[in-house]
Amino acid sequence: MTDKEFFKVTSLERVLELIGTFPCVDEEVLPLDQCVGRILFQDTVSKIDLPEFNRATMDGYAVQAQSTFGASESLPALLRIVGAVEMGEVPTVSVRPGEAVRIATGGMLPDGADSVVMIEHAQALDEHTLEVFKSVAPLQHVIEVGEDFRREEQVLAKGSRIRPQEMGVLAALGKTHVTVYRQPTVATISSGDEIVPIEQNPSLSQLRDVNAYTLASLIRLSGGIPLYLGIARDNFDELHGLCKNALDQADMVLISGGSSVGSRDFTLEVIEALPDAEILVHGVSISPGKPTILAASKQKPIWGLPGQVTSTMVVFHVMVRPMLRKIGGLSEDRLLAEREVSAVLSRNLASVQGREDYVRVKLVHRENQIYAEPILGKSGLIHTMVKADGLVRIDINSEGLDKGTHVSVVMF
Amino acid sequence: MTDKEFFKVTSLERVLELIGTFPCVDEEVLPLDQCVGRILFQDTVSKIDLPEFNRATMDGYAVQAQSTFGASESLPALLRIVGAVEMGEVPTVSVRPGEAVRIATGGMLPDGADSVVMIEHAQALDEHTLEVFKSVAPLQHVIEVGEDFRREEQVLAKGSRIRPQEMGVLAALGKTHVTVYRQPTVATISSGDEIVPIEQNPSLSQLRDVNAYTLASLIRLSGGIPLYLGIARDNFDELHGLCKNALDQADMVLISGGSSVGSRDFTLEVIEALPDAEILVHGVSISPGKPTILAASKQKPIWGLPGQVTSTMVVFHVMVRPMLRKIGGLSEDRLLAEREVSAVLSRNLASVQGREDYVRVKLVHRENQIYAEPILGKSGLIHTMVKADGLVRIDINSEGLDKGTHVSVVMF
Repeated sequence: MTDKEFFKVTSLERVLELIGTFPCVDEEVLPLDQCVGRILFQDTVSKIDLPEFNRATMDGYAVQAQSTFGASESLPALLRIVGAVEMGEVPTVSVRPGEAVRIATGGMLPDGADSVVMIEHAQALDEHTLEVFKSVAPLQHVIEVGEDFRREEQVLAKGSRIRPQEMGVLAALGKTHVTVYRQPTVATISSGDEIVPIEQNPSLSQLRDVNAYTLASLIRLSGGIPLYLGIARDNFDELHGLCKNALDQADMVLISGGSSVGSRDFTLEVIEALPDAEILVHGVSISPGKPTILAASKQKPIWGLPGQVTSTMVVFHVMVRPMLRKIGGLSEDRLLAEREVSAVLSRNLASVQGREDYVRVKLVHRENQIYAEPILGKSGLIHTMVKADGLVRIDINSEGLDKGTHVSVVMF
Repeated sequence: MTDKEFFKVTSLERVLELIGTFPCVDEEVLPLDQCVGRILFQDTVSKIDLPEFNRATMDGYAVQAQSTFGASESLPALLRIVGAVEMGEVPTVSVRPGEAVRIATGGMLPDGADSVVMIEHAQALDEHTLEVFKSVAPLQHVIEVGEDFRREEQVLAKGSRIRPQEMGVLAALGKTHVTVYRQPTVATISSGDEIVPIEQNPSLSQLRDVNAYTLASLIRLSGGIPLYLGIARDNFDELHGLCKNALDQADMVLISGGSSVGSRDFTLEVIEALPDAEILVHGVSISPGKPTILAASKQKPIWGLPGQVTSTMVVFHVMVRPMLRKIGGLSEDRLLAEREVSAVLSRNLASVQGREDYVRVKLVHRENQIYAEPILGKSGLIHTMVKADGLVRIDINSEGLDKGTHVSVVMF
């Protein structure tokens, strides 16, 4: 256990490494229509070829490509129309050289046909005679059996987020139920003698429990299930009781408040008294968010977050959200693909070497370019967060960023 | 009513203008904890100053700034410690020149004090004597009454999306209930003789109802409530019945399938027979997605979408989602701030003038730069959507984009 006498600030890089040491949650089986946004627990392998038949991708005529070779506006190929494909039915006709069968987009290619002449490139002279003005290549305007997915092919990977297109794939394969990672439950505890529930009129010197609502929303938007356990006054037994309660019910615990030195020490004492407790991080070299605590009890992460809501939001975006995604099963690949918007900095930004600074910015579209405009104002003011679209990071080794620099904005 | 004899393709720009002509949904009142992601129906005005008292933003000592003027490491100011501020309580002491009161972050400044000396810049020699090594300016490390929001100030605007920070503001103001726009209900109908429910084993030439699941997910992720009404065979009465049912229950109707010319005509006939029907758009100059239909019945929008799932997804992202946000109350300002990621194109892309092309791309981080890599493969294949992170638009007047061009990616 880290001795709190030897309080040492940890780099963000190291904190993100520690995130990888916590286990993922287990799985559950859900009906497909509840799966969007969830994370796949298993690779998905196709048991069928998709499509299962050669399918037309245009309205027109199914033909043998060779019957159209050399066809042009001035010298059309003449083909014999021998029937039509009904949607959803196996064609009863087949196509021989010099023959054509009417077909609509999505229709099944008849035996013998290998391509489709677009309706725009053909004209029926009468019921049985077709002029074709442009040649087609074999397989043109056709999706072949298994061209989307082959039988026994892995089509989706464990750890992927199920987006609308993955929903489509699962539906095409007939997966009415899917095994996904459970959504991590994240308990939140607000601490501090000055905090009152929001429905209460705070007396002068008291504050409404803003963090309860901000954190619950952040948890929900990051794929977790928030579980609010209430406000603990600055009293060892009260906070310790809520923490034990939280560890019983949740996969992760967030204690907010306690950003003052005294209250931080107090939160540490409470965490140290939990079963198998280990303090992993006590202070991180970022701003805002330096007083962050990360601990483990029974392999579950416990975060001590700053009381200031604006700092807590930054810490959540930079450290807690990546952890929530990790223990929720999202694969590393996808973590990289999370949305960051690149923009051009609209003014110079100063910084202090030796810490990573996170600066609130608003995105402005101007002259075909996205600019990141730093939001001015004291960092403790929540209105600076309301005006902002995201955060720009200034590297630990940098003294600042110049106007015009291309920056990456972590979006709210 | 547009005569379908005079079938004319509409520009995307015009379609987006038409979106603005549909009315927004009405409102509902929700408990605050259900409001994240929802759209504010009213401006929010603060009835209080926030904060309601001068608050310390650092741990340290509340002082009169003038007591510290000239203080330095070599010549510290000597102050008398006259008490401490308890969290959540109105201070009983006041601060006069030459005096200091211990205070923690978030504490209420005592009368007389105008600033806070950080704990790092002071040292208590004994219980009553403080050395201060650095001067502070008036209001330093303090948030003043009303500095975040003033009483009677508009703090949030109608039409804003409620993000975690807006939740925080509403909580700080004690808003236990909030008036938000209702989530638009969007009915979906799959049409086509070849479509079968996903739990069914399609016989050869049939297709599972992929669009039902893809569209429901897109609707949900765009803030709507999906309402799946089932599969209509290519039968006038069946599709007409489902459409009337949809108009009774929903704010918007999506009919998917019918991408073949015959089936498109048929969908048009059904729509034209609905009450007060008006066909607004019949064909859009984009690819994929050209056969899109937009109509209105009783001021509600009805979309005819291509049957091909990949085309339907593009049409949804480019036209249906903006409409869903608009009728869901989201303000124009915020529509602009929707997430697009800028990237550098990794290879040349050809295009046809006279239509807007939407090309699937994968984002790849390489050498501190985000590259958009076009996904190869026939546009009808769903695996091209699974591999993609978003869409790049090629302008209607462009013949293509060169490798190295900065592009904007509409993210899935």
